[in-house]
Amino acid sequence: MATTEGTKLWGGRFVGNTDPVMESFNASIAYDQRMWDADIRGSKAYVKALEKAQLVSMEENQKILHGLDQIADEWAKGTFEIKPGDEDIHTANERRLKELIGAPGGKLHTGRSRNDQVVTDMRLWLRDAIATLTSDALQLISTMVERAAVEINVLFPGYTHLQRAQPIRWSHWILSHAVALSRDVDRLLEIKKRVNVLPLGSGAIAGTPFNIDRELLQKAEFLFWASLCLTHLSKMAEDLMLYSTKEFSFVTLSDAYSTGSSLMPQKRNADSLELIRSKAGRLFGRCAGFMMTLKGLPSTYNKDLQEDKEAMFDCYDTVHAVLQVTTGVLSTLKINQSVMEAALSPDMLATDLAYYLVRKGVPFRDAHSLSGKAVFTAESKNVSLNQLTKEDLIAISPLFEDDVSSLWDYQSSVEQYSAPGGTAKSSVETQVEHLRKWTKILMQ
Amino acid sequence: MATTEGTKLWGGRFVGNTDPVMESFNASIAYDQRMWDADIRGSKAYVKALEKAQLVSMEENQKILHGLDQIADEWAKGTFEIKPGDEDIHTANERRLKELIGAPGGKLHTGRSRNDQVVTDMRLWLRDAIATLTSDALQLISTMVERAAVEINVLFPGYTHLQRAQPIRWSHWILSHAVALSRDVDRLLEIKKRVNVLPLGSGAIAGTPFNIDRELLQKAEFLFWASLCLTHLSKMAEDLMLYSTKEFSFVTLSDAYSTGSSLMPQKRNADSLELIRSKAGRLFGRCAGFMMTLKGLPSTYNKDLQEDKEAMFDCYDTVHAVLQVTTGVLSTLKINQSVMEAALSPDMLATDLAYYLVRKGVPFRDAHSLSGKAVFTAESKNVSLNQLTKEDLIAISPLFEDDVSSLWDYQSSVEQYSAPGGTAKSSVETQVEHLRKWTKILMQ
Amino acid sequence: MATTEGTKLWGGRFVGNTDPVMESFNASIAYDQRMWDADIRGSKAYVKALEKAQLVSMEENQKILHGLDQIADEWAKGTFEIKPGDEDIHTANERRLKELIGAPGGKLHTGRSRNDQVVTDMRLWLRDAIATLTSDALQLISTMVERAAVEINVLFPGYTHLQRAQPIRWSHWILSHAVALSRDVDRLLEIKKRVNVLPLGSGAIAGTPFNIDRELLQKAEFLFWASLCLTHLSKMAEDLMLYSTKEFSFVTLSDAYSTGSSLMPQKRNADSLELIRSKAGRLFGRCAGFMMTLKGLPSTYNKDLQEDKEAMFDCYDTVHAVLQVTTGVLSTLKINQSVMEAALSPDMLATDLAYYLVRKGVPFRDAHSLSGKAVFTAESKNVSLNQLTKEDLIAISPLFEDDVSSLWDYQSSVEQYSAPGGTAKSSVETQVEHLRKWTKILMQ
Amino acid sequence: MATTEGTKLWGGRFVGNTDPVMESFNASIAYDQRMWDADIRGSKAYVKALEKAQLVSMEENQKILHGLDQIADEWAKGTFEIKPGDEDIHTANERRLKELIGAPGGKLHTGRSRNDQVVTDMRLWLRDAIATLTSDALQLISTMVERAAVEINVLFPGYTHLQRAQPIRWSHWILSHAVALSRDVDRLLEIKKRVNVLPLGSGAIAGTPFNIDRELLQKAEFLFWASLCLTHLSKMAEDLMLYSTKEFSFVTLSDAYSTGSSLMPQKRNADSLELIRSKAGRLFGRCAGFMMTLKGLPSTYNKDLQEDKEAMFDCYDTVHAVLQVTTGVLSTLKINQSVMEAALSPDMLATDLAYYLVRKGVPFRDAHSLSGKAVFTAESKNVSLNQLTKEDLIAISPLFEDDVSSLWDYQSSVEQYSAPGGTAKSSVETQVEHLRKWTKILMQ
Repeated sequence: MATTEGTKLWGGRFVGNTDPVMESFNASIAYDQRMWDADIRGSKAYVKALEKAQLVSMEENQKILHGLDQIADEWAKGTFEIKPGDEDIHTANERRLKELIGAPGGKLHTGRSRNDQVVTDMRLWLRDAIATLTSDALQLISTMVERAAVEINVLFPGYTHLQRAQPIRWSHWILSHAVALSRDVDRLLEIKKRVNVLPLGSGAIAGTPFNIDRELLQKAEFLFWASLCLTHLSKMAEDLMLYSTKEFSFVTLSDAYSTGSSLMPQKRNADSLELIRSKAGRLFGRCAGFMMTLKGLPSTYNKDLQEDKEAMFDCYDTVHAVLQVTTGVLSTLKINQSVMEAALSPDMLATDLAYYLVRKGVPFRDAHSLSGKAVFTAESKNVSLNQLTKEDLIAISPLFEDDVSSLWDYQSSVEQYSAPGGTAKSSVETQVEHLRKWTKILMQ
Repeated sequence: MATTEGTKLWGGRFVGNTDPVMESFNASIAYDQRMWDADIRGSKAYVKALEKAQLVSMEENQKILHGLDQIADEWAKGTFEIKPGDEDIHTANERRLKELIGAPGGKLHTGRSRNDQVVTDMRLWLRDAIATLTSDALQLISTMVERAAVEINVLFPGYTHLQRAQPIRWSHWILSHAVALSRDVDRLLEIKKRVNVLPLGSGAIAGTPFNIDRELLQKAEFLFWASLCLTHLSKMAEDLMLYSTKEFSFVTLSDAYSTGSSLMPQKRNADSLELIRSKAGRLFGRCAGFMMTLKGLPSTYNKDLQEDKEAMFDCYDTVHAVLQVTTGVLSTLKINQSVMEAALSPDMLATDLAYYLVRKGVPFRDAHSLSGKAVFTAESKNVSLNQLTKEDLIAISPLFEDDVSSLWDYQSSVEQYSAPGGTAKSSVETQVEHLRKWTKILMQ
Repeated sequence: MATTEGTKLWGGRFVGNTDPVMESFNASIAYDQRMWDADIRGSKAYVKALEKAQLVSMEENQKILHGLDQIADEWAKGTFEIKPGDEDIHTANERRLKELIGAPGGKLHTGRSRNDQVVTDMRLWLRDAIATLTSDALQLISTMVERAAVEINVLFPGYTHLQRAQPIRWSHWILSHAVALSRDVDRLLEIKKRVNVLPLGSGAIAGTPFNIDRELLQKAEFLFWASLCLTHLSKMAEDLMLYSTKEFSFVTLSDAYSTGSSLMPQKRNADSLELIRSKAGRLFGRCAGFMMTLKGLPSTYNKDLQEDKEAMFDCYDTVHAVLQVTTGVLSTLKINQSVMEAALSPDMLATDLAYYLVRKGVPFRDAHSLSGKAVFTAESKNVSLNQLTKEDLIAISPLFEDDVSSLWDYQSSVEQYSAPGGTAKSSVETQVEHLRKWTKILMQ
Repeated sequence: MATTEGTKLWGGRFVGNTDPVMESFNASIAYDQRMWDADIRGSKAYVKALEKAQLVSMEENQKILHGLDQIADEWAKGTFEIKPGDEDIHTANERRLKELIGAPGGKLHTGRSRNDQVVTDMRLWLRDAIATLTSDALQLISTMVERAAVEINVLFPGYTHLQRAQPIRWSHWILSHAVALSRDVDRLLEIKKRVNVLPLGSGAIAGTPFNIDRELLQKAEFLFWASLCLTHLSKMAEDLMLYSTKEFSFVTLSDAYSTGSSLMPQKRNADSLELIRSKAGRLFGRCAGFMMTLKGLPSTYNKDLQEDKEAMFDCYDTVHAVLQVTTGVLSTLKINQSVMEAALSPDMLATDLAYYLVRKGVPFRDAHSLSGKAVFTAESKNVSLNQLTKEDLIAISPLFEDDVSSLWDYQSSVEQYSAPGGTAKSSVETQVEHLRKWTKILMQ
């Protein structure tokens, strides 16, 4: 038997050598070593179960636990040495355990396939990952909510189709994204619930390879969650990128989240926002890759599934970084209130003009058309909508009277929408309070 | 003003013509007319709210409701006539309402943008869609569970890496997929919960365009759900496709789910399974397309979002068909029990051989290696594992004794795994009972 | 034998019924009937080959050709009647041929499987599709080139990271996208070359199912081409969308390519651009779906591959429409030259300021840093860069002299870059000429 | 100014600090350092151009070239030390150059933005990458062709829909995949042509940021190529995986490309094939991620584009490994000729039986139906097709005569298809010769 194969788990049978490209193709230690802690925690729980089932003695149990602690210590201190043949974290830890405690180390894997071990380790890792991401997201939401509370009086244009639509509160924009993020947290907590359900048969001495399919769907769910969350943040980043252009000039990013140009000395680029936006693509690619890998696979374990780990780790790392950077951007951003307010213009109240006629009994569709005529007249005369004369207006509809002048007030306009989720101050305040409470409960 | 534009909603302002390619590019009536029922239900609810808010009179309310009922009737009978200018179902119904009841029809849209209407209609449609798909899935699960109950005594090889691994019950295979499907149902019900939460501000007279972002994420969730569910089914279909090859011959598809070849008279193709497998790709494409459309979009409504509807409809139609066809396949499939059992071979009990040594105190890793040597010896001697002589075995380990012969029994082997989710008869029966109850509760 | 199966191609063998859901799942006539013309052209070529190979007589050949012409006539006039059992266009045409000419119709399919037929039809269809799309793209490029020629003197800000970078010609922006499109045309012509290569064995009486794999890769290539081309156009649309916001106000879309809002009378949305942008997602979804369908399929034909047609048709239709709409948008767009030029500001010449120092011997990195200090000084003093006094500049570097004032000229700045592809008038003119010639050659 | 910012390229202007998470988010040195060689080659070419343009003196040129050589030496020896602030390979090399040669180092970047540098480096890197992958693919094709030449006499079942269809040569299967791979090479060479075209304006002192868009499409093309090539290989791997199951037993993988199970001593898993199959998903994910990142981006450089590099590197590494492993698998695989031939059965000649009737004047469709009846009769009588008695056959069609017995010969059956690409020995030999020549030309 080839000596290079000495530490392979299936050493008993093989008579050939493996190809070095194949070896490294097959190995996952380069990226799965980050699960060392989960692997050791999993093994410690497993050996206790083995003792209960009388498959290891109390003494062996003690030795194994002690050995595992020593290994954990080596990883923590950075002294653990990876050796050729350590193809994954599980093999590496098992090899080391045998070096440290000898024969009893071989008992740790009674009735546990490597796949069982991978599943358990990933589950432990994912539980921690979800906890961290939840906390990151809550931190971001909290930052947004407090900012919305402070800047509640700032008005600026609400856009649809990138065209100025109606005046809204700046806080309304902030909260719309905070609420969407809170839904992302809700979804993450649902995944957490499923991760916490032990797979049928696990913990028992006899696992079943079919659990693997349920686990896979859970991973796919997490990858999609990550990509959905970042897709959402890519939209928020896009808004802020526009707002930070010279042309909009609504916001100024802090230097800490901007970079200059190596060629053009005057440039100040919103790199942080561009990176946030780009990561939605990256993570969706991870999700797409994994789904494509899963498609049409036969049941139970196939080596194809090795692809899951890099995808999971990258998704976690990316979301973790994005949420922190977004929190940084939003807590240091300066707004240019006067520019924001100067961007409001009377034509953004054309809907209010239509409602004026609706209140006088005109069906909405006709009122909309008449208001459209007013906009057209103003454009033709090259004046703004509130500068139309009484004669101009009466020519459009005899129902216009002097009180129409009271419409041209942005504050009153936003105050009209006082339903939950509306732009009125009270609506925004209610939402702030709601999110504060919700965040507080979850942070506990 | 161009006469062709007479019925456009923004008719008051435009002075140019539109390009016919652009017109058809922009129009969605070809596919969104299927929401006619949801659109009318939504409008009926809305007009009642308008009456409450005293924005339409009781009489107008009656007229509008009556007109809407008439339109519904036309759609139901197939007599509704789509006219040029009806760019979507909402415009079409509104145009028709005005033809039927005149001026009061124009009041129905007070304070409601077309986007509000689209959101409401889609929500109503999605609620129905989820209800149907839940019922389809439960039907399939129920078929699987009853089949598993009846065929509980059939053994066949469990595979990992497409290689024969250990003997399992055929019912165990069925239930592993049924359980995965039950998780899909759980996920769908979570989406349903979110769909049922009215968006903040909806129902009120003043909507807010920012709700649109929350709705989008919900749609993306549904598209991903559909693609995850079919990815899961693609794996089950793959298993069955293999089992139905000449080489495996474990199952025979009913003629109703097979087709012949136009060239080769002897062929009998598992087309139904291939179609099921292929749809995972189709739907993931829909999900990918929508996610890519969303990526980096500014907040609120942009016309890009028109892409959601075809994707949603296609996902629903496809999952609806796939679940029904899968139910058909699984309820008519014949199993070839003798072939299944003949495929079991003593080497699939090599793990049991290792456990035999474990029970005599050998650490698992060593036992695994010794059992591997036994497999190798058998292969070298060209006999099956249970035909090794006592001498052969003792040469491998002196711990082997006469009682090793009791291992070579597949029934006993599967009975070892009696934990929840295991292959023992009792475990399978427990799972059958559990799924029966769960299905019954949800079907109510 | 079930009567409903009378017209099925494999009628000789089956004894069961098919499920109606399965029937419609399996059928493709709803979308593949658009290939009627290709199917008939393919069959006409095939029957001639059969006659040559003496597998049909001259008389039969005549009858078949005549019958096929009659069918073509029915399709063209819209009188072809699809009957139950016509599961695809090939079956439909074959069924009709038998009705029209009886027994000889049955000879047409000698040695030709339905898959052979599908492959040939798709190839013929794709050849036409590529010709049309090439012509569409050339039309668009031509429009862009002529516009660039006319508006060559208009300057506006070139952006990187959405921040104003350097002055460029508007024509330079146009041509950068025209050149990228010309690369898309190059790629399409490469695919055309491959489509024109007859598959090995085709035309012969005996085809081989393995060709199917080569065909698939070609289809996947086309789907990706479509998605790459639209991704590119999505970027151009994004630029134009920004330029058409109130904040930028560089361009105004023609009414023909804008739409209003059903709620807000003053709105004017760039719907055409939003639709163009969104289609990149749609088509990438199609490509993703097909790639996922292909992944891991066994060689040769599997029913999964039925998914290709809808994807191909949708990609073609979408690119065809997008190219036409984009041509319309770009030929009717109005530019606001004064706004464009007013958006230029002296800080966009900071790189020129650095080069001024480079010309006096300062290494570029130091010059860049000194120019950056000038920008910072101007910002601190709240003046524009060209308003710094001689003293200000000398304090930064003693190398600044009076001739620095000659820098503050946008026309001279763009004229500096006279290399091919540069912003100088001569460079732009060269590119215009090059593209005119290239387009002319391909249009022939 | 913050001291931590000392080495940043835009050091002249910023007054704030950056966030450490943002720093690492922004940095690419961790993965782009592998381009050190391309970066230095690019800089050497650039400094020569600067000298020609008299922007650096001959002496400075010499110093810079010498300094760059020293840096290359450090990288090659592994002694190059990355310092904080080296955010990418370009910054790192530039920083080191200044340390080594002082002031003249600052001149190297005259008129060259970092984006220009990234573009040039990636182009150089990609050229090398394409050369290596072409050679890998040719090596694989060559292995396949030689194997096909040697094993030309082995027959086995050709499958469609995973059902046994017609007898084919094993070499025919091999070559079908070799030909598809040769198309992949053709596509790669087309990309190479485009990579070799210098971007307009490059090499010149003044680059233009718009080139970036053309570069992007090229990268997207490479990513898609990689994913298409591996999708194709995933199909070949799937075939081999099936052929290596116990049930098919057509091929046996060498130990070097198989692995055992950590739980089941008798297992022998085709891990290499599973990994090959899985990588199609991985790479498509990379392509999908990049396309999604590109979608809707404004023109020119945006930081989002930083995502390209990891994707490109991973695609290259993965295809490089997969092609090598596939070559290894195919050159060491053992075929089980007797099992392959035993899998042929007379019903696979049912098409030949139909052709027998066609030769006697029966239209193909009728002949197909009659042959189908023969298959059905044989199944009913539980005999194989060639065991039907003369009476059985005459009852189906009176045209059957004694010479029908000559049909039951698999060798004659495959010899019928002698057109190019057919299964006849001469056809296969022609294809072998063709591919040998083609490979030889490209290998030069």
